[in-house]
Amino acid sequence: MDAPSTTLVDHQDLTDFCSACFRSLGLSAPDAEVTGRSLVWASLRGVDSHGVVLTKEYAERIRAGSIEPRSPYSVHTEGTTTAVIDAAAGVGQVAGVRAMEMALNKAAQTGVGIVGVKNSNHFGAAAFYSMMAVEREMIGFATTNAPPSMAPWGGKARLLGNNPLCFAVPAGKYPPVVLDMAAGASAWGKIFIAQQQGRKIPLTWALDKNGEPTDEPAKAFDGGLIQPLGGYKGYGLSLILDVLAGLLTGSGFSTHIPPWNDKGRSQQCGHLVAAIRIDGFLPISTFRGRMDELIGIMKSSPPAPGTDRVLVPGEIENEIEQQRRAQGIPIYPAIRQDLENLGRELNVPSPF
Amino acid sequence: MDAPSTTLVDHQDLTDFCSACFRSLGLSAPDAEVTGRSLVWASLRGVDSHGVVLTKEYAERIRAGSIEPRSPYSVHTEGTTTAVIDAAAGVGQVAGVRAMEMALNKAAQTGVGIVGVKNSNHFGAAAFYSMMAVEREMIGFATTNAPPSMAPWGGKARLLGNNPLCFAVPAGKYPPVVLDMAAGASAWGKIFIAQQQGRKIPLTWALDKNGEPTDEPAKAFDGGLIQPLGGYKGYGLSLILDVLAGLLTGSGFSTHIPPWNDKGRSQQCGHLVAAIRIDGFLPISTFRGRMDELIGIMKSSPPAPGTDRVLVPGEIENEIEQQRRAQGIPIYPAIRQDLENLGRELNVPSPF
Repeated sequence: MDAPSTTLVDHQDLTDFCSACFRSLGLSAPDAEVTGRSLVWASLRGVDSHGVVLTKEYAERIRAGSIEPRSPYSVHTEGTTTAVIDAAAGVGQVAGVRAMEMALNKAAQTGVGIVGVKNSNHFGAAAFYSMMAVEREMIGFATTNAPPSMAPWGGKARLLGNNPLCFAVPAGKYPPVVLDMAAGASAWGKIFIAQQQGRKIPLTWALDKNGEPTDEPAKAFDGGLIQPLGGYKGYGLSLILDVLAGLLTGSGFSTHIPPWNDKGRSQQCGHLVAAIRIDGFLPISTFRGRMDELIGIMKSSPPAPGTDRVLVPGEIENEIEQQRRAQGIPIYPAIRQDLENLGRELNVPSPF
Repeated sequence: MDAPSTTLVDHQDLTDFCSACFRSLGLSAPDAEVTGRSLVWASLRGVDSHGVVLTKEYAERIRAGSIEPRSPYSVHTEGTTTAVIDAAAGVGQVAGVRAMEMALNKAAQTGVGIVGVKNSNHFGAAAFYSMMAVEREMIGFATTNAPPSMAPWGGKARLLGNNPLCFAVPAGKYPPVVLDMAAGASAWGKIFIAQQQGRKIPLTWALDKNGEPTDEPAKAFDGGLIQPLGGYKGYGLSLILDVLAGLLTGSGFSTHIPPWNDKGRSQQCGHLVAAIRIDGFLPISTFRGRMDELIGIMKSSPPAPGTDRVLVPGEIENEIEQQRRAQGIPIYPAIRQDLENLGRELNVPSPF
């Protein structure tokens, strides 16, 4: 399944390594552990774009002063069910976990908790936060805004991020259902892979620099844009997620968020996480039984021509996680090299 | 703009007519007014599929006993921030408005309110409920589940509704942003129009009865299915909306909801509405100013080739509403005939 040149690394060894790197970069021990664990968790789930590959990226931003390793992450506003945390240019993961912990405590008290984060940075995989709610028998939600990479539908200027929304829902005998999707028709990573393989891309994925749909990866990368999912629907979704994560939290939004490759400036992005207590609606055991029934209906339905089986959201990630927990996380040679170099610079022993 | 054979009718006359029909069908005066007003509101906004065309449809269901005109709409479960209303096979609109009123009161007290409805029927346009929150300076959310018309991604069985999600957000000088979108790549209505005009449809809109993508409207209607928006993303979204509207509320879900043309059975569908107080996060005036800035960024951006202007979600509906409030709502001859016939049967004077 994985190319023979990858190295398999135990997830705990990798977490220890990444955490030690972040400690060496100035984070407190608990904050470093959360950040490392978040990245390794994404790698465990097969979401490699949000995994340990970001360790070097985050290190560069901390060194450039755009991520503040010792932010106080103070509570800016707080009510019965809602709050805003000011990340003060800190690490997105640390702010995101604190926000979800507040949301969970508020939900435990009142039924619902919604907590925003402002002035933050990249927070990794949104599912990391939603899944915290599942552990407490709640439904979890998480979103963030991101550097602009999409035009509004009918436009051609880079004004909106490929903003994600994530819901995580506990089930009974089945693993949780986890929907973690962005509002774009594609991701840059998928267009990059098509380019590497010499393939064209669907005309619905990207625009060229003139705002025309293109099926050539090279034209998408030459000043082009991601297209919103399903046209006006993905545009609307991305805009609303920017409202929730950026505007409502008092954070940056739209073009206020600098491009991803501008590592010297804090991203000023915002996040919003929420937790809903299931037992405010139904007994949790009833809900779990109903989820199992719904999942069973999907999984036992006949596949369409050319498909092996019908999956539910999060099922593949769960299978990859089981496999990688047992066998280790595959690390490509270039990533291994980056991590080893970083470890040497920071005096952290290699996990390889 | 409208074909010459349509009749323009004043929206208040139409509301009075529809409300009188529903009173004659057994609804209390307030419940009849809400139901009529909801349908006329959708027609005013140009959402004709959810407008007064449904008056005859609802009448048939009330007469068939599948919509109970005198449901008590009792509160089934209630907590600090959450509740479930049992619609007991009543009118979706009446239950939806009561749910949003509860959500708004809970949000006014605590910052957030989330209220579900179970054992309900079609509730019209989701934006009708979200917009109630905007009038109270809050962000509104509404969703419902619906009769299955989509397969899960990779499947070919009719297991999920073309479930909508709607967010409504107040702005300052601009009208509210209102995103009201379904999880499907298309709607049956759009495929029907293509068929009428002899056009093919995109291969991403529908599956034929064997689960193969088709560009022929006739094959879509011959036992076929709507495709989910963007494949696995629209599938995941529809599934999560079914979890929120159907499973969590204790209502029917997936294949428990009978087909739309089965008028003799209550739909047993569920809704979920939510209200979030903006001033739990930011002063409302600050938020309105930020919304105006975001909308201004979108609207002043250059259009792509072939486009006149960049719109924000809800802008077209707002323009149509202004026009139709002033000039009347255009009613096609066949719909006029249906309404006149219904009025005669129910002893309600024609609005034409």
